[in-house]
Amino acid sequence: MRDCYREIAGWLEPLGVKVAIDAAGNLRALYSAREADAPRLLVGSHLDTIPNAGAYDGILGVVLAVTLLECLEGMKLPFGIEAVGFSEEEGVRFGTPFIGSRALAGTLDGKLLGHTDWQGISVRQAIDNFGLNSEKVAEAVLQDDTLGYLEFHIEQGPVLEKLGKPLAAVEAIVGQSRLELTFVGRTNHAGTTPMDLRYDALAGAAEWINTVERSAREMTGLVATVGGIEVKPGATNVIPGKTTLTLDVRHRSDSVRTQAVDELVHQAERIAKLRGLLVKNDIILNQQAVAMDPFLTGQIEEAIRKTGCESHRMVSGAGHDAMILAEKIPAGMIFLRTPGGISHDPAESVNVEDVATAIECGLHLLEQLASSAEFQKRTHRAQSR
Amino acid sequence: MRDCYREIAGWLEPLGVKVAIDAAGNLRALYSAREADAPRLLVGSHLDTIPNAGAYDGILGVVLAVTLLECLEGMKLPFGIEAVGFSEEEGVRFGTPFIGSRALAGTLDGKLLGHTDWQGISVRQAIDNFGLNSEKVAEAVLQDDTLGYLEFHIEQGPVLEKLGKPLAAVEAIVGQSRLELTFVGRTNHAGTTPMDLRYDALAGAAEWINTVERSAREMTGLVATVGGIEVKPGATNVIPGKTTLTLDVRHRSDSVRTQAVDELVHQAERIAKLRGLLVKNDIILNQQAVAMDPFLTGQIEEAIRKTGCESHRMVSGAGHDAMILAEKIPAGMIFLRTPGGISHDPAESVNVEDVATAIECGLHLLEQLASSAEFQKRTHRAQSR
Repeated sequence: MRDCYREIAGWLEPLGVKVAIDAAGNLRALYSAREADAPRLLVGSHLDTIPNAGAYDGILGVVLAVTLLECLEGMKLPFGIEAVGFSEEEGVRFGTPFIGSRALAGTLDGKLLGHTDWQGISVRQAIDNFGLNSEKVAEAVLQDDTLGYLEFHIEQGPVLEKLGKPLAAVEAIVGQSRLELTFVGRTNHAGTTPMDLRYDALAGAAEWINTVERSAREMTGLVATVGGIEVKPGATNVIPGKTTLTLDVRHRSDSVRTQAVDELVHQAERIAKLRGLLVKNDIILNQQAVAMDPFLTGQIEEAIRKTGCESHRMVSGAGHDAMILAEKIPAGMIFLRTPGGISHDPAESVNVEDVATAIECGLHLLEQLASSAEFQKRTHRAQSR
Repeated sequence: MRDCYREIAGWLEPLGVKVAIDAAGNLRALYSAREADAPRLLVGSHLDTIPNAGAYDGILGVVLAVTLLECLEGMKLPFGIEAVGFSEEEGVRFGTPFIGSRALAGTLDGKLLGHTDWQGISVRQAIDNFGLNSEKVAEAVLQDDTLGYLEFHIEQGPVLEKLGKPLAAVEAIVGQSRLELTFVGRTNHAGTTPMDLRYDALAGAAEWINTVERSAREMTGLVATVGGIEVKPGATNVIPGKTTLTLDVRHRSDSVRTQAVDELVHQAERIAKLRGLLVKNDIILNQQAVAMDPFLTGQIEEAIRKTGCESHRMVSGAGHDAMILAEKIPAGMIFLRTPGGISHDPAESVNVEDVATAIECGLHLLEQLASSAEFQKRTHRAQSR
């Protein structure tokens, strides 16, 4: 992470833009406006990634934010542009995503700071261990003069490739639920315990994993994934006594999603009961579907058309920092086509031409916003707060 | 492990018995015979255990060996008694059990020394990192003057408790197969990849786990266990691209066991094919069923009867170091009743009275062997080698 900050700071400093790291580990760099005390527009994405990931998820949006600042060649706009590189968007370490952007939204609270990783280190401790000051998290919150947030991100799915389009305006982000389920059985010797006297926590969990898959296949548009599993004690010659699993459920309809989660928890309880196991579940995330700002989405479509491409509106199946910021400020998102729909994998890629188109789109968008009556009105509102 | 060596050495040194640690990490301590150059009898079990284990599996047999030496109160027999505490019996770290006893049997070869743990550290490196010398593994091999091996161990199953008997003579140890299977699919984003375009390596593995359970239930006396599972990348919001599982299969008939393993591997291939996954399997262990020495087993039964208990003969469902040593020297095993059949769990226990009976049995057995014509004959044979 330190190398990442250093690299990006090295790009921004020649532009006269200073880089700060806020208490939540977000990189923040303000390109100043034409006039002092003008409001600001945030542009960015996240810096973190998953284990064994690709090279574009998140970081491409930060690189594009920096590129737009470079392309301005010193030209100042009626608003400042704050390039942002969020920390901990994926939720790998603490099981909870969007920690960086939550700090800006003011929702990185004491409870979330207390979440621990697999070694028992809390978010708060991790911040302090890194050399930041967890007591200053409140100072990372959005400034009152913030006009909105723009995020470029790879689609991470097959839609744009299928349509033959390089870019899309995101109109909404699906809601998602994340749960942790634990099946508890009885640890025993794999050689001396007959099959009919076992309380195998992994066999029960496996039955449930297949139920999750079957249920999701039966409901249009629903995706449900068991991505993580841990077995205790985890030895070849021992019947598992405890199995912990993660569950990720998404749908564009919040009611379909929450009903599906209830049903899957019910199925886990049914399986556990039949096998003499216990099961408990914790809801780690219950994120509603979130609409992007209609004005910004319209402006993004216009900017896409100016690049000579057809515009396209779509729903994001993935959560993004834009979803967290949309709780507080207008947010807009631009997707880039993802070859093969492959993401969260070293084979993840983008087409160079699509990145060039995204830069062109971004410059059109900044120009539109700088001359938009609607956006000027917002700017005045922001200044008069 | 160092604390364990130190503790046991502290018990043996007052008896004038010196403790050495061989190059495979086995504790070895020779209580000398009446005459110099007399042969030796090995008595012991293993020192290592599984994660979150009980307090008796293995170590009780080492404690009983030391106790028998204490009970001799300096009396010398026609043979020496080498108390042995084996290392790495369970196979937790390297996936391969019986590393310590294999060193005595002379089967800790270059291939096995090259096996690596999850961090990529080999058995050889682990030995050297601990401060032992892996080049001296050959020096740990059984001395030519070794008469046999005796092992006390908890049953780790429900049989003796059901029969109401404290001890049994083990006449054979079941064969066991251990495999590692890896399902490979395609890592992808959990939110943007529709259910029908997934190649989920965990969902495939889960289907197979339930097949393993079902197949084992259908064959009398067969036990099959998936005890370990690891998923990559293992994040909540990522479809698993790779799942590695362990398989443990046991049966008293070697042909039933190997046919069952073949069938389970076939089932894994069938499931993988239907799901567009790849699967590969490695056989980690293919241990034949092993008979204990009939003479020693008879002597054990006689010693049990002398304690006032009925004798009982049984087959062990668990593998033991005695199985490895039986390839080279006569081996005998005595089981202690295990309350609730619970083992490999912190709730594992033994009855204090049963331990007292085991000590009494052990002393009768040493006395019988010291005066047995058959055993004297062996002693002479051993001396004349």
